[in-house]
Amino acid sequence: MPLRNEEEEELHHVGPGTPSGEVLRRYWLPVEISENLGGGRGNAFSGARNPLRVRVLGEDLVLFRDASGEPALLAEHCSHRGTSLYYGRVEDDCIRCLYHGWAYDREGRVVDTPAEPPDSNFKLTVKHPSYPCVEVAGLIFAYLGAPERQPLFPRYHQLFGENGLRVTGNGGRIQRSNVFLQTLDNVLDPWHSEISHGWYKGTPVVTTMHHGRNGEPTTPIRYDRTPWGARYVVLQSGERPGKYSYRETHAVFPVQRCNLTDGRSMKWSVPIDDHSTRWFAVDFYPFVEGKPSREALSAINDPSPSDARAVMSDDWVEQVGAWWNLGHPWRQGQIWEDEIDMGTQGRPERNNFPDWEKWHLATSDRGVMFIRQLWREQVERVRRGEDPLGVIRDPANDLLVHIPADRVTVDWEAGMRLFNLSPEERAAMVAEQWATRSRSGPVPV
Amino acid sequence: MPLRNEEEEELHHVGPGTPSGEVLRRYWLPVEISENLGGGRGNAFSGARNPLRVRVLGEDLVLFRDASGEPALLAEHCSHRGTSLYYGRVEDDCIRCLYHGWAYDREGRVVDTPAEPPDSNFKLTVKHPSYPCVEVAGLIFAYLGAPERQPLFPRYHQLFGENGLRVTGNGGRIQRSNVFLQTLDNVLDPWHSEISHGWYKGTPVVTTMHHGRNGEPTTPIRYDRTPWGARYVVLQSGERPGKYSYRETHAVFPVQRCNLTDGRSMKWSVPIDDHSTRWFAVDFYPFVEGKPSREALSAINDPSPSDARAVMSDDWVEQVGAWWNLGHPWRQGQIWEDEIDMGTQGRPERNNFPDWEKWHLATSDRGVMFIRQLWREQVERVRRGEDPLGVIRDPANDLLVHIPADRVTVDWEAGMRLFNLSPEERAAMVAEQWATRSRSGPVPV
Amino acid sequence: MPLRNEEEEELHHVGPGTPSGEVLRRYWLPVEISENLGGGRGNAFSGARNPLRVRVLGEDLVLFRDASGEPALLAEHCSHRGTSLYYGRVEDDCIRCLYHGWAYDREGRVVDTPAEPPDSNFKLTVKHPSYPCVEVAGLIFAYLGAPERQPLFPRYHQLFGENGLRVTGNGGRIQRSNVFLQTLDNVLDPWHSEISHGWYKGTPVVTTMHHGRNGEPTTPIRYDRTPWGARYVVLQSGERPGKYSYRETHAVFPVQRCNLTDGRSMKWSVPIDDHSTRWFAVDFYPFVEGKPSREALSAINDPSPSDARAVMSDDWVEQVGAWWNLGHPWRQGQIWEDEIDMGTQGRPERNNFPDWEKWHLATSDRGVMFIRQLWREQVERVRRGEDPLGVIRDPANDLLVHIPADRVTVDWEAGMRLFNLSPEERAAMVAEQWATRSRSGPVPV
Repeated sequence: MPLRNEEEEELHHVGPGTPSGEVLRRYWLPVEISENLGGGRGNAFSGARNPLRVRVLGEDLVLFRDASGEPALLAEHCSHRGTSLYYGRVEDDCIRCLYHGWAYDREGRVVDTPAEPPDSNFKLTVKHPSYPCVEVAGLIFAYLGAPERQPLFPRYHQLFGENGLRVTGNGGRIQRSNVFLQTLDNVLDPWHSEISHGWYKGTPVVTTMHHGRNGEPTTPIRYDRTPWGARYVVLQSGERPGKYSYRETHAVFPVQRCNLTDGRSMKWSVPIDDHSTRWFAVDFYPFVEGKPSREALSAINDPSPSDARAVMSDDWVEQVGAWWNLGHPWRQGQIWEDEIDMGTQGRPERNNFPDWEKWHLATSDRGVMFIRQLWREQVERVRRGEDPLGVIRDPANDLLVHIPADRVTVDWEAGMRLFNLSPEERAAMVAEQWATRSRSGPVPV
Repeated sequence: MPLRNEEEEELHHVGPGTPSGEVLRRYWLPVEISENLGGGRGNAFSGARNPLRVRVLGEDLVLFRDASGEPALLAEHCSHRGTSLYYGRVEDDCIRCLYHGWAYDREGRVVDTPAEPPDSNFKLTVKHPSYPCVEVAGLIFAYLGAPERQPLFPRYHQLFGENGLRVTGNGGRIQRSNVFLQTLDNVLDPWHSEISHGWYKGTPVVTTMHHGRNGEPTTPIRYDRTPWGARYVVLQSGERPGKYSYRETHAVFPVQRCNLTDGRSMKWSVPIDDHSTRWFAVDFYPFVEGKPSREALSAINDPSPSDARAVMSDDWVEQVGAWWNLGHPWRQGQIWEDEIDMGTQGRPERNNFPDWEKWHLATSDRGVMFIRQLWREQVERVRRGEDPLGVIRDPANDLLVHIPADRVTVDWEAGMRLFNLSPEERAAMVAEQWATRSRSGPVPV
Repeated sequence: MPLRNEEEEELHHVGPGTPSGEVLRRYWLPVEISENLGGGRGNAFSGARNPLRVRVLGEDLVLFRDASGEPALLAEHCSHRGTSLYYGRVEDDCIRCLYHGWAYDREGRVVDTPAEPPDSNFKLTVKHPSYPCVEVAGLIFAYLGAPERQPLFPRYHQLFGENGLRVTGNGGRIQRSNVFLQTLDNVLDPWHSEISHGWYKGTPVVTTMHHGRNGEPTTPIRYDRTPWGARYVVLQSGERPGKYSYRETHAVFPVQRCNLTDGRSMKWSVPIDDHSTRWFAVDFYPFVEGKPSREALSAINDPSPSDARAVMSDDWVEQVGAWWNLGHPWRQGQIWEDEIDMGTQGRPERNNFPDWEKWHLATSDRGVMFIRQLWREQVERVRRGEDPLGVIRDPANDLLVHIPADRVTVDWEAGMRLFNLSPEERAAMVAEQWATRSRSGPVPV
């Protein structure tokens, strides 16, 4: 069943009131990294600024931190006469517009209107748009939906785990040409991992996942719906004979991917607007015998561009260029590859939307159809006033969330046992693993 | 009564045939400063060029000066086959198109068509769009309206006054995001003067104008219609006890502001098109005892950016940036403040128009409603074929115009006497003052 | 009969399915110069790249050269999921997409889909858009039309002639504001040659072509339809008394101009899209006594910008600027003049289309009406399924094509004999001249 442009476009808008925009507004989303935002008890980091201007889901917003240290997210344009609050001044408990001095607190209440009579109650009649924020693990998250639908903040172990080293990305990965569903297509695509991120670099890893070549069994692949979104699982050939690589990757709604050993990494690809995306990433490395592992230390000292350390100019894809430009240091990195893979699907004349009707989906594209089916279900749920997948509302469920993503070398039988587990069985198994670690030594969670 | 976007937008277009465009085309408007335009008996100023390309009220025009020294303003595109006359050559009495050599004189007459037979009368059938110009006080003004409605050129004393020092701005203040009515909103807004241009810099001047604090009387404010547009008058607390500051600021139609001591300054904010504005300014300092005052000399030697000396890049607001950028030399200047106040009200997705429906107008915004009422009256007048406010057509009225703007320190009683005068009484009073100066010493006018 | 904007615009679109787009797609068009494209047996030229991205007639395409050395032209976006093949890798017999490794050969066949099962026939169901290429005289030509209408490649002597020196331009002349019919207007315009390229520089050559001044006869001009498009012929006054200059210039369909002595030069102005144009040029200088002529050697050593050596930035017209900028080295060159003549007819607010309804066509604009009449005929022919002018389909006609353009000094009688020849008579005469050269000495063809 080929994709239809009209249906796809309807599904790709992210603004207020659009079908997908309403789904996206039922979740907490990162909007900035903590160290970019000054204020509070002082700027811990040089270069921090207060306020900041951010654009999220097509909305222009101003982010500031008052003297309490708490971040606040307001509509950028003053409710008085529309001047940008980005050029305003942050004071102890408010941000104040330059034009006539209207001041707003973190909840968008108007706390001063100096040009009005002192006894005027006019300011009580105005509510400036504001969104609640949560700051955790070096990221500032916000909830942009209706207040009465605000869910609990999800306690992913990458954000809340203890006894480990946490590496938070710098938020510098911005894709100027990317729509959010093509990012989810990419998450649920084991083939591009093999081909784009492997084979192309000379490593013949595509054969490790393929179709019975070299006497190896055809790689089993399964797709599942999960309590948080979707996953794929593969059991592919390993580097040594008789060894296999069990890989499980999760798409966590609305825009996250969770992968790597121990589900170490969570990445958010947050729509800036209909055609651009900003990435945030947190990796969590549990301590080994109470100390950071060598792998963890190596990760934080690696200067090459990654989700954690990207600093991208608007035209970096053009600068890095095409295949002939092999010498460029970013040319063969995973970010470059994903930027090309996803970021060139759009076409300028279609406002950076792809021309989906020209796609030819094959057996390896099951994830593309699967994610659309799941996403449309969420659109329907939200239309009916229900919560979409993965939203936590009951305080009894407010537990540490271990997405059971993993990557581990096993023999065939052990691998197939893992492969045959349902997402719920895997979740229980991983929860038990983390609990065991807690009991048996330095508490990783 | 909240503003409505649809009505506001209709009022904010400036092109030919639009309601406000037709009002704007009933007045003389500055289109360039004299020293930017070469030609005539030689280029007096290095950097002068001939012709120049200017965009005024949404029209692309070419400005040149022939050997007579007179400026001329024509449509940019040749009436033959549309090639830009900006790349043409200025000759003794014409500008000649590069493509086929058609030549136009200052009145838009076709004076040569070298590719046509010598006896051809074809050129007599073509009239190229041209607009009359007046050059005065270092500015080139043009009238872009219907010839049969052309009024007299208004003899503002800032332009025509004698026995004084005249400082003409360099025309370098260009706002890329500004619609003309939000400039008029800004003129008739005493509060932003106190808050944006005062209080924000640390000077607690807001209390000088407020609501009975510190035992001072509540500042009286009045708005009036005038023979030239509108004005506000305030009598605010002064720096010393018992002293008050009488301030009278005028909006002079269509796009001028007149303020400061002795109505010293006149500024034109001329719409380039629907979303950008170019400023021109002339200040006139009467001689004191036949010589320039210290204030006048200080003004012409002040190197800081002002309306007179602005040179703005397209992205200067971004460069100067927000509140955290206190160290920038332009950060606390009045131009920066007005650029933020007015220039960020628009939204890119609305073609730089504000989202007026999200404004919340309060008691301090009387000027916003007042200017709209007055402007709509002018739209109606022009629709009925009448002249709008301030247009002078009768030669008997072709006198020096003293707009009675002022800023003066007085005691309460003297201030209230000034305050209670009508615009007409103030006009008579100021005319008498200028006449007295003429009689009693060095003639200032 | 004035031009109408609506009709003109319809005629100026170049995309697939538009009236003129379909005409343009019946001819071979140059799309790149050979030395810009690497690949094959190695990159002969530093700076050559493989693949290249090109935009032709509004289509985004990728051009590559596989190990055979043959160029190939494919749609830029992968038929699988739309990723740009510009970032793919050229292999021995294909270009391979970075995302999932789909590989396409020169004919657009899918030759590998590594993520599909080895026995899958899925790839046989997909045909990627591709266009046939011919590489000749340092240019890569492509045919973008329906395969069943593909004509023979025309054997212009500038491309295929032997015993001569061939100078191929660098393809660097790109006009950002130019629609293709205003280029054809320009070809068939003897007057602008006199005025824009002559008189403006101070040479009073306009009188050599005019209306009986100086006792000279009025210059005769004729326009003709030809087997390849259209031509004009003039017999204008020469530099010496009694000597005349016979000039014959051809518009060769769809977008070529052929002019200069011996029809030496052929230039293609290929629409990039509706509002920009890229030029390609080949000049052919027959050997004189078996050696390059002094004129030929001088041409290839001339460093000044020309069609052959243009390297243009997007804003070069702005940089070179207007008439006052006499000192600029490009200011008085023919490219600059044509760029102004043609490139400023468009208006930004009209997507760079001219406002044709404001044109005033005179007797000297016969070419403008003539080219429209001819072009509309081709639109009709193509609508009826016939070949447009100049298309060669019969192998019996696959001969060297000598467009009889020329520029030669003659006396009046000889000139008028030439002038009175029909295009067919001129073609026969020129064919005989080239054959004679072949027989009488070093074979020029």
